[in-house]
This record gives sequence, C-alpha cells and structure tokens, in this order.
Amino acid sequence: MTDIAMTIPDLHAAYARGVSPEQIIAQVYTRLREVDDPCIFLSMASEADAQAAAAALGPYDPAKPLWGVPFAVKDNIDVAGYETTAACPAYAYTPTQDAFVVAKLREAGAIFIGKTNLDQFATGLVGVRTPYGAPRNSIDPEIVPGGSSGGSGVAVGHGIVAFSLGTDTAGSGRVPAALNNIVGLKPTLGALSATGVVPACRSVETVSIFALTVADAYTAFTVACAYDAADAYARHISAPPLSTPKSAPVIGIPSRDSIRFSGDAVQEASFNAAVDLLRGQGAEIREIDFTPLYDVADMLYEGAWVAERYTVIEDLLHKDPEAILPVTRQVICKAEALSAADAFRGMYRLKELSRIAETALEGLDMLCVPTIPTFHTVAELEADPIGPNSNFGTYTNFVNLLDMCGIAVPVPARSDGRPGSVTLLAAAGKDADIAASGLALEAAGKRNLGATGWPFNGTPTLEAAATDGLILAVCG
Amino acid sequence: MTDIAMTIPDLHAAYARGVSPEQIIAQVYTRLREVDDPCIFLSMASEADAQAAAAALGPYDPAKPLWGVPFAVKDNIDVAGYETTAACPAYAYTPTQDAFVVAKLREAGAIFIGKTNLDQFATGLVGVRTPYGAPRNSIDPEIVPGGSSGGSGVAVGHGIVAFSLGTDTAGSGRVPAALNNIVGLKPTLGALSATGVVPACRSVETVSIFALTVADAYTAFTVACAYDAADAYARHISAPPLSTPKSAPVIGIPSRDSIRFSGDAVQEASFNAAVDLLRGQGAEIREIDFTPLYDVADMLYEGAWVAERYTVIEDLLHKDPEAILPVTRQVICKAEALSAADAFRGMYRLKELSRIAETALEGLDMLCVPTIPTFHTVAELEADPIGPNSNFGTYTNFVNLLDMCGIAVPVPARSDGRPGSVTLLAAAGKDADIAASGLALEAAGKRNLGATGWPFNGTPTLEAAATDGLILAVCG
Repeated sequence: MTDIAMTIPDLHAAYARGVSPEQIIAQVYTRLREVDDPCIFLSMASEADAQAAAAALGPYDPAKPLWGVPFAVKDNIDVAGYETTAACPAYAYTPTQDAFVVAKLREAGAIFIGKTNLDQFATGLVGVRTPYGAPRNSIDPEIVPGGSSGGSGVAVGHGIVAFSLGTDTAGSGRVPAALNNIVGLKPTLGALSATGVVPACRSVETVSIFALTVADAYTAFTVACAYDAADAYARHISAPPLSTPKSAPVIGIPSRDSIRFSGDAVQEASFNAAVDLLRGQGAEIREIDFTPLYDVADMLYEGAWVAERYTVIEDLLHKDPEAILPVTRQVICKAEALSAADAFRGMYRLKELSRIAETALEGLDMLCVPTIPTFHTVAELEADPIGPNSNFGTYTNFVNLLDMCGIAVPVPARSDGRPGSVTLLAAAGKDADIAASGLALEAAGKRNLGATGWPFNGTPTLEAAATDGLILAVCG
Repeated sequence: MTDIAMTIPDLHAAYARGVSPEQIIAQVYTRLREVDDPCIFLSMASEADAQAAAAALGPYDPAKPLWGVPFAVKDNIDVAGYETTAACPAYAYTPTQDAFVVAKLREAGAIFIGKTNLDQFATGLVGVRTPYGAPRNSIDPEIVPGGSSGGSGVAVGHGIVAFSLGTDTAGSGRVPAALNNIVGLKPTLGALSATGVVPACRSVETVSIFALTVADAYTAFTVACAYDAADAYARHISAPPLSTPKSAPVIGIPSRDSIRFSGDAVQEASFNAAVDLLRGQGAEIREIDFTPLYDVADMLYEGAWVAERYTVIEDLLHKDPEAILPVTRQVICKAEALSAADAFRGMYRLKELSRIAETALEGLDMLCVPTIPTFHTVAELEADPIGPNSNFGTYTNFVNLLDMCGIAVPVPARSDGRPGSVTLLAAAGKDADIAASGLALEAAGKRNLGATGWPFNGTPTLEAAATDGLILAVCG
C-alpha cells in the first residue's frame, strides 16, 4: 500500500513536503473504487467538485488545523446542496446551508467527500436498518458495520477519509468504532451544535466524530466545538489542548458480577488485557456494580425517550407509513402507547437512577468499559433485528442519559483478529481528560489503523502532538 | 395589642428577658381563637402538645436559630403523626416521619403548630379550591387568601405563627404573600428537600417559606436548606449569611409596552413607587420586553407540565373521580389528551423560549416584578374559577420553568390600603442576593407586618442582623 496514511499528521507532513491536495483527493476516489462498496455513501461530491474544493484552498496553510483533510458526513447532517435523507427517501430534503459543525470544519480547511449511510432516522446500533442496502463492515463483511453511523464508521475504517461525522444517542458514535477498529469520540451533550442536524432523540444526542486516531478525532472536535446560540440545547463546553493525563487516575470498570460479554470469552480476554494496559500506565482500577447503569440503559428504548424519535417521524408516519422501515416503525411506534404522564414518570425514574449511579461513580476519574459486549453478524441481525441491536447498547445506552462524555479507543486486536475496543467515559465537560487518557491507551500495544493495514506508529506522541498545538503541557 | 410581635428577633429578645415559650404558645392559641377562622388549619397540634414541645426545648438556647419559634406547615408536607391531605380527604395518609425540611426546622428549635389549608393538590393560586372551606384573607375577607399555600399565608399574615412552609410551582409561595402583606421566599429548585412532600409538579417545584420579614424567611431558609441525597431533584445550593447587596445592581422590570396590570392603576402606581425605592437605593433600572417570559408562563398549564400533576392523581382519579374537586379535575385532566411526544415537544419549546429569555436577561443582576398584576375577590372566583387564577400567575408562572429563585417582598401599602408587593427574581443559586436586596427594600417606606398592625420597625437592620449571625459583612 503506497497511499499516504489518512491521518492528519501524515497528510500535513505530505502537504508540507509538497504533495498537493489534488493528489490526496485522487487517492480518496481511487481508494473508494478499490473498496467497491456502493452502500457507504448515499450521495457524494463528484471527484471534480472535491478537486475544485481542494484547489480553492490555495497554498498549504498549517495554521488551518484541517487543511486539506478529507471528511465524510452522516446523512442526517446537512451539507449545502446535498440531499439529507436520514436514510428515508420520503423524508429527504436538500439544504441550502451547511450544518453549523460542517461549516466550522470546512472553514478549518476540511474537504467534504460525501454523505454516509445510516440506520434510518439514526435509530439502531447495527448499520443494516437502511433501505439503501447496508455498507459492509470494513474489516469483516460477515459482521455488521455498526450503527447508526455505519457509513461514517466504514469510510474511516477503510481510510477513505481521515475523519467523519456521526451522531450518537444510544451509542451510534461508538459502536461502529468498535466494529471497524477506529476511534469514536462522543462529546458532552451540547458541545457540538445540532443546527442542521435531523434530530433523533433531541434531548440526549450529539454529533460525534470518527477518526483513525484519538489525536485526529480530538483535533476535529476542537474545530467543531463552538457555542451556537441558535441551538437551544447548546452548552458552553471547552475543548482545550490535551494535557498529560493524571498520573494515577482512578478508573471504574464493571465488577466481575455485573460485567456482560454474552459468553464471548475472547472479548472478555481483550477487555482484561486493555485494563492491564491502563494498570500498567499507572491507573488504579476499581470494580463497580454496573446494575444502576444497565437500569438507566434500559430506559432509552423501554422508557419515554422513544417518544422523542416519534416527534421526528410523526408527520411522515401519518402520511406514508410504508416509507419507514418496518423495524424502525416497530421500535419508534412504541411511543404511541405513551402518555405525557408516562414521559414525566420516565424522567422521575431517570433522576432517581441517576442519583444512584452518581453514588456508584463517586471518587472515580472515569470509567472504562468494553465498547460492545460481543460481535454480531449480518446473519444474526437478519434472524433477529432487535435482540443483537439491544445487546450492542449494553455499555453505550446509559451514557447520554447520564450526561457523560465518551471516547471509544481501539486497543490491540483480539486473539481471533477482530478489533479490540474499549470506551472511556466521564462526567460532562471532561472530554479533554478522556481524550488524553485515550491517547495514551491507543499508543499501548500494537495495532493497525482501521481496516487499512497502516500501522499505528505511536505518533503523535505527546511531544509530537505538542508541536502540532494539540497538547498543552508535557510534564510526565 | 399587647402580644409579642411574631418575628424571630422579637421572640428571641422576649426569651432572652425571661419570657417562657409556654407564654408564646399560649399567645399563639389565643390569637388563633381571636382570628376565629376555622379554615386556616386542617389539623393542629393541641395546645397541650405544643406546650409539651415548648417545654421539651429546655432552657433558652440562642444558638438554635429557631428556638421557640412557632411555625405552620402546608398540608402537602408531612409532619409525623398528623394527616397529610393535600386538601383531598380521599388522598389522606398519616406519615410516621417528618418531611426532611420539617425535621431540620424542629431540630433548630421551631415549634410545630398546625397543617394549613391549600388549593387541592397545590393546583391553583387562589386558595379557594379546597373542599374544607377557604380560609379568609387575613387583611380583607373580600379578596381571596391566595394559593395554593393559602392557609400558610393567612396564618403568617395574622401573626399566629412566625413562619410557615408552602410549596411553589406556579407561584403558590409568592401570590399568598402579596395578598397577605408578608414575605414569600421561593428558593432555587432543589435547595429544599422534597422528601416527605406530596408532589404537584415534581420537576419544577419547591418548598417555600412565608414570614413577616425578609430576615425571618431567610433564617428559616438557612435552616431548611441542606442537601438531601434521598431526593433525586436535590441540588447543592448554599444559603450563606446575607451580605450587603451590590451597591448599584442592574434590575430589569417589565417594559411599559409589556407590563400587565389588568387595568389596575393603583397597582401600577404601587409598583412604580416600589421601583422608585429601588432606584433611590442606587439600583439601575432597565425596562425589558417581558413577552418571552409570558410565553414561558403560558407553558405551565397550557403545555405538557400539567401531566406532572396528573401522575399524582391518576390512581385516585380512576378509583374515585368525585373525590377530586371539579375545577382541579378540569385543570389537571387536560393531561389526558397529551402524548409522550407532546411532552417532549413541550420541553423543546421551553428550551427554545429559555434561550430567548436568557438573552433578554443578559446583563441584569435581578428582575423586579409586581408579585400579582391586580387583586381578585372571592366573588370573582366564584363566577370564574379559572380566569382570575391564571391572571395571578402573570409574574410567577415562568419562574420555576426558567430555574430562577424569587422573593416576594412587602412594600408600602397601596393608596387604597391594600398591600403592596413586588418580587425580586434571579438566576438559580442567587437566593442570598435577592434576599439581601429584599431586606433593604422592605426597610424602605413605612408598613405594618401582615394583617397584625405590628409596625415594621426597620429591624433587623444589617447591623442588628449581623449580631444575630444573619449577615456576613456590612460594608456599605
């Protein structure tokens, strides 16, 4: 493979030595043809348009953190002039303006490549709930691509683009990361603007970022993270340069009695090995009972929040129910049985569970969980479209309901070759803390980037990242 | 009138010079007989029981901020051994434990006198929606007592007790204050525990405090304000000693175009005079457009929140609908038409309105509003049980939805002799700031305490309050 690795430092090093963005764009489209999966993108910039955007950047400007960096956008996020479908043709519209976050990324020099496939209305964790045909998992076509941000995960997994935008309510910005050996950064709620994003579950969702490395995901996050007064759910969240992580963080993991792997001993071994890496880096590991977190997780689809999804599809459902996939209808239409009183009862229950969870998490700097308990195949999903989907949410569903931020970090491959992935989780606003810890964790052990075969070569180290302006202080 | 004025400094001065708490208890019950309104209290400590509680206090202990201070409790808040009815006999139960806040007050030496009448299920701002017969307004029996904490407002207005507990969602802790010439302190949501309180609108309500003076209300608040881990809605809110208010606060008032007095020119003149008092104390007054705040106010009964009230009565409603007052049913049962999707749509709308309101309030230290736009009579309420009730909420309904704290402060009587009252409002957590400003405001001009005829004699001044431990620093 002679391609330039699709990471920001590699791209910027190439640009610095004279490679043109046109060459990189050519690589993107060549790679896309090589991958030959027509279901990753639902619409695309033509190669000529992308080349024009590259040419419009002018001379290489290292001050622009995403100069010449190709990226993809989940097709529930607006890009001016491209259809937004939310994977539902009957819902489609063509926006005239970029979503707030897309505009920020482009201002910083990123080059838009295409809109990616997703579980319809971002409802699902599998990536196969789409009328456009499911993208293939980038590593193993037998396993699902993950969802709902499936196309975005696969596009990065193949190294077609350097990063992509997803969205995340239940785990849509993390599960595809685990399944495609990449990083999934799920910011604190309100950090990234929702202006120009088709809502799924508006009160508990966020735009998310996939990349091949933690540093790249965090770089895109720092660019996208800006307070948007037009988004009623926006919050003032800071995205400071990463600092050296706390030397001996206290990290909670699910206790032996409460951890769940669906019988997958290989996944269990992989998680234990990742925890050993954290321990080796000085972390104090504490086992905690995860029951209250699972209880919260159950509320996302069993509780009132499914009614948020209903508000999005209600009109279409009445006009043209067949326009919505049966499985999506089945999941979302549960809301029809729920009253406003039920919604408030759900919120009371969440408040009570949150208080219990808060107590369980006291004294911890962060949590480390398996991103997914096990893998599920396309065949399994065909046999049961609901069960495996729910199972994927074991360690993800509770996160937004509890107002936590998270980052799914690749760890060394499992003994059977499947990707290893753990997720670091912390309280709202601690995005930089978990990213810094993720940076250290991804550098431990040996792995490749996504499905590309490009080795993770340990850069950026903290020092290298510091020269790139990403790191605030190196004192360890 | 030879009674000892029912304020904490007067009581404590009396105790210090050898008056016994038994003498004060005797005064309470004598006064109660003089007032001769059987509808203020729904249940009471017998005089003998109150005497026993007084005797159990032992020798006068000035370290206990509420030593020997008689108080009343709205009958939706538990006092061990006394029925909690929420003004609905079919709902009644007898708790074995004090509500968290009641326990705190008793630990500080307060003496429980009785449970007060209220608008059923704390739904109303008038005080006449009760099957037990409405208490008479303490000042003028033609006007309503105010609600929902009507009995609590009247008991303090008459000087039967020194302070009382109410609850406040729409304005139940402020409207009775305006109607009975007393102080109504509505804390930041989550400052006072809801453990042992019958919920009305759980996500946007709080226990509140009535007293004859700002200092007394704030003293009771400092005692009651403690984080209760058992209350899922509890927050860590501080109740520091009052400090001298900011010398030139910026205070927002409704603009000429948006202010509402229902044509009551006397109320308008009274409000303008109060604003002049603030101006005279150095405040910078800014007129702001109140439209976004009225829009928020409308959501409380028109929007989804009425479904919170429905969760409280749902079981009873199915079992025995006649047990609930027709007007209460009429208000609350609107929730039956609301879906969970409607509830979330309501929350989205509130978020959007909150963002607009936030912008409108930028740069202000606090708001000053008329507590009520005008007065309504018992006869008016008999003719129309809904309209005047809604009108009372003009300046109160938006406060909890916007997570603000407030204090209704008596100002000099109107030209027609009816009580003057304004409410100071500020962002969550600023309880001490508005109380300090309220302390200064109530000392400006001349007035009596409640309906008692006791003059407000300007004490406690900041200096006097400082010796009482209430004031942190006097530097102006």
